[in-house]
Amino acid sequence: MVDVIDLNSDLGEGFGRYTLGHDARLFEVVSSANIACGFHAGDPRTMQASVHLAHENGVGIGAHPGFPDLAGFGRRELRVSHDEIVTDMIYQIGALAGFCQAAGVRLQHIKPHGALYNMAVREPAVAHAIADAVARFDPTALLFVLPNSVFEIAAHERNLRVVREIFADRAVEVDGSLVARSKPGAVITDVQEVIARTIRMVRLGVVTAITGEDISMSGETICVHGDTPDAVELLQRLRSALEDDGVRVQPVGSWLTA
Amino acid sequence: MVDVIDLNSDLGEGFGRYTLGHDARLFEVVSSANIACGFHAGDPRTMQASVHLAHENGVGIGAHPGFPDLAGFGRRELRVSHDEIVTDMIYQIGALAGFCQAAGVRLQHIKPHGALYNMAVREPAVAHAIADAVARFDPTALLFVLPNSVFEIAAHERNLRVVREIFADRAVEVDGSLVARSKPGAVITDVQEVIARTIRMVRLGVVTAITGEDISMSGETICVHGDTPDAVELLQRLRSALEDDGVRVQPVGSWLTA
Amino acid sequence: MVDVIDLNSDLGEGFGRYTLGHDARLFEVVSSANIACGFHAGDPRTMQASVHLAHENGVGIGAHPGFPDLAGFGRRELRVSHDEIVTDMIYQIGALAGFCQAAGVRLQHIKPHGALYNMAVREPAVAHAIADAVARFDPTALLFVLPNSVFEIAAHERNLRVVREIFADRAVEVDGSLVARSKPGAVITDVQEVIARTIRMVRLGVVTAITGEDISMSGETICVHGDTPDAVELLQRLRSALEDDGVRVQPVGSWLTA
Amino acid sequence: MVDVIDLNSDLGEGFGRYTLGHDARLFEVVSSANIACGFHAGDPRTMQASVHLAHENGVGIGAHPGFPDLAGFGRRELRVSHDEIVTDMIYQIGALAGFCQAAGVRLQHIKPHGALYNMAVREPAVAHAIADAVARFDPTALLFVLPNSVFEIAAHERNLRVVREIFADRAVEVDGSLVARSKPGAVITDVQEVIARTIRMVRLGVVTAITGEDISMSGETICVHGDTPDAVELLQRLRSALEDDGVRVQPVGSWLTA
Repeated sequence: MVDVIDLNSDLGEGFGRYTLGHDARLFEVVSSANIACGFHAGDPRTMQASVHLAHENGVGIGAHPGFPDLAGFGRRELRVSHDEIVTDMIYQIGALAGFCQAAGVRLQHIKPHGALYNMAVREPAVAHAIADAVARFDPTALLFVLPNSVFEIAAHERNLRVVREIFADRAVEVDGSLVARSKPGAVITDVQEVIARTIRMVRLGVVTAITGEDISMSGETICVHGDTPDAVELLQRLRSALEDDGVRVQPVGSWLTA
Repeated sequence: MVDVIDLNSDLGEGFGRYTLGHDARLFEVVSSANIACGFHAGDPRTMQASVHLAHENGVGIGAHPGFPDLAGFGRRELRVSHDEIVTDMIYQIGALAGFCQAAGVRLQHIKPHGALYNMAVREPAVAHAIADAVARFDPTALLFVLPNSVFEIAAHERNLRVVREIFADRAVEVDGSLVARSKPGAVITDVQEVIARTIRMVRLGVVTAITGEDISMSGETICVHGDTPDAVELLQRLRSALEDDGVRVQPVGSWLTA
Repeated sequence: MVDVIDLNSDLGEGFGRYTLGHDARLFEVVSSANIACGFHAGDPRTMQASVHLAHENGVGIGAHPGFPDLAGFGRRELRVSHDEIVTDMIYQIGALAGFCQAAGVRLQHIKPHGALYNMAVREPAVAHAIADAVARFDPTALLFVLPNSVFEIAAHERNLRVVREIFADRAVEVDGSLVARSKPGAVITDVQEVIARTIRMVRLGVVTAITGEDISMSGETICVHGDTPDAVELLQRLRSALEDDGVRVQPVGSWLTA
Repeated sequence: MVDVIDLNSDLGEGFGRYTLGHDARLFEVVSSANIACGFHAGDPRTMQASVHLAHENGVGIGAHPGFPDLAGFGRRELRVSHDEIVTDMIYQIGALAGFCQAAGVRLQHIKPHGALYNMAVREPAVAHAIADAVARFDPTALLFVLPNSVFEIAAHERNLRVVREIFADRAVEVDGSLVARSKPGAVITDVQEVIARTIRMVRLGVVTAITGEDISMSGETICVHGDTPDAVELLQRLRSALEDDGVRVQPVGSWLTA
């Protein structure tokens, strides 16, 4: 039975005078942080501060590149070419890696943000471009993907080190994909249910789909969104529940083999 | 007598659909390229293409970070803090280093662009912030500076590996500073004179100031601007003249000791 | 038989230090200018200069709003909401109207740019959002549309003053839509053929589709792209040919009734 | 004795997903709003929403143009030319005026933001460029200035309609200039003192300088910053105190003569 898991959240999403979420407290409860890299959020001061906060808290550092769309927070689909995805990603990952190098720490993983992630889940061309960017930048980097998606397939085809992420508070269809946010019941708001589902996914690799059927669902990292008002408390309770159940919460890079 | 010199130019200064200068041909005549990093010019596609062109032509690759001011091409002074300079530089250098890493080549040097460079020449606080950024990112990186400026002093105080650059086509004051562009005679347009002055600086470490007096002026790299219509021809003639005179033109990182 | 036509081109597409095309000469040969408004091209200096050049040459001034995508020159599709299109358009049109007001001239028309235009031709939701923006900003403004498209239909449904534009150098499908640029023969490069086709469209409202059949095709303005190397000469020859044939070339706002 | 005053605050300072302050409640207590125009803050959606909120609450609408520096929130000095100030201002004012036109309301006033305002107070060249921009856009527009500054002088020289603003919570030097924020006592935090000082300035045109001497200080509008946590309460109490004292709080454009 699985006894170690990673817990990731999107952090460092401020820009200039603007802030989002409660980064200082969130860095204390996650084990991996997806740090915005300047295109959809995250200016250089925020990025440096996030790298330092991650380092101080023993949190795995991830680059969280997105579309060049600050006004839309990287959540709007942009029709870009293979080459545009590759170069926009290398630029952003390199920039964050610069702060890691300056701080004497390692970049642990890469996770695309928002619309770029969502397109990768559905569109092989986007998934392959992302995998290509990671392979070119560092073929040993960890890439976070949605289990059973074309994104996971593309990452495997490129022989990348893949980390599958499961979503603590999102309902899933019977094929394992996330229920669209526009549908009722897409987001699970009851904290007890979130915790129970997550422990079952982590421990047993099973979750109940929105149709009522149990399906396979396992991964190495759990994603919890950090931008909701109650994110800190939810993360604290989820982490405690996992640890009480005997599951250690640690950066995936510290325990993932191969 | 000096028999090797570096020849640098600002390249990769396009953005999206916009281009500047004749990069493809300029990469064939310089030995080091200062590549724009996205803040004042240079989008990710241009950066990647510039790194590849430099690599193919055996040209030393330099990060050319500037102020976040695309509309002003980084030529307008911006009052920024020490921390803003440090983080904006690490971000930009890291981004370019990302393309170097993806291409399997090394970043050779760092040279601030435009107003950032000009402020560093005059203002110790700016010079120290730039030196701090370089020291944090990579204390072994080469930093291009104006000889005899507060910028050079700050770089030495940080124990950085300093490369002094002399200007082929710019008149100098008797104290060695550049004659302001607003003054008559600031830019030397006669190609023969540019060549003769440059060879004298390289070979003898002497130049005639605008007052008529000879002063000391030496460096390890010669800067020629690549954005004038005749830049390619000027660079070709200057390089040929240097080589005919027995001076090898090679990337400074390949021959600079210590 | 039609004896007056408008001739429009995209102008003012520079940004900061970057320029595109030969605006100064193009303003002498077109009768209407679509001026970039800062989101995909066109900084405030370029916009002011373009308004002045248009005014001096008696050229009708058009706002040419695009997606907020300078790196992609507004040519990449962005999935935006109705409200995002409306507000991005009002912002850009208002900004250009500010320069018109400062120069004491009138804004003549509005034409969306690049991917925004192309999406409007195919997608009713985008077309309606554009029509909504124009109606809210100024219900008496002229809106340039592609004839027989969902864009034209949406503009009519909003009771806007519609100007249909025909393309001088683009082949058309039998249903009147433009042949995709990716297909062979999409762009007609023979100047004599461009001129003959255009005069036939203007005079008779007929054009030969790529299938060989004659179809109806008429409009009040002819679009010629100004960013090709030979744009000035093509426009001069086309304008001369039209005038020699007895067709006056004048800003559509000066002669369109109703 | 003065019995009417305007109360202004900087509003609409969000950008995309980011928000600042409590705009919805602040629009209920001010009589004039300085609305960010997209360069230092304020995307098109925020601008439209701000214009609507102002209209619904009977608040005077002001354009609040700033330097093109979202990362620095327009608070960093940028060395720009006369022409750059004029065109950047016309662009931003025009954009906001576009939303006013679409909403069927009038633009009441113009107030430069942040570093642009601060430079105008000290530097005649900047002050004249701002006055020039306003005069070109609309010579009848109201321009908010700091009393007794070179900014006020420049505005009068251009024959603009000038509105002097006094600061409710800022200490002043004996010459009437604001005490620099870096000095102790620059910001007055005691609400009772803020209210008492403000009523004295409004009613009697007198304020006690930081040196202890009474000096003349009067204006037509009171500036209160809306981005502090207690801004809503401060504004409510200040407004109530003014009204209890018999001073009406109304948009300056509704009562200023000439």
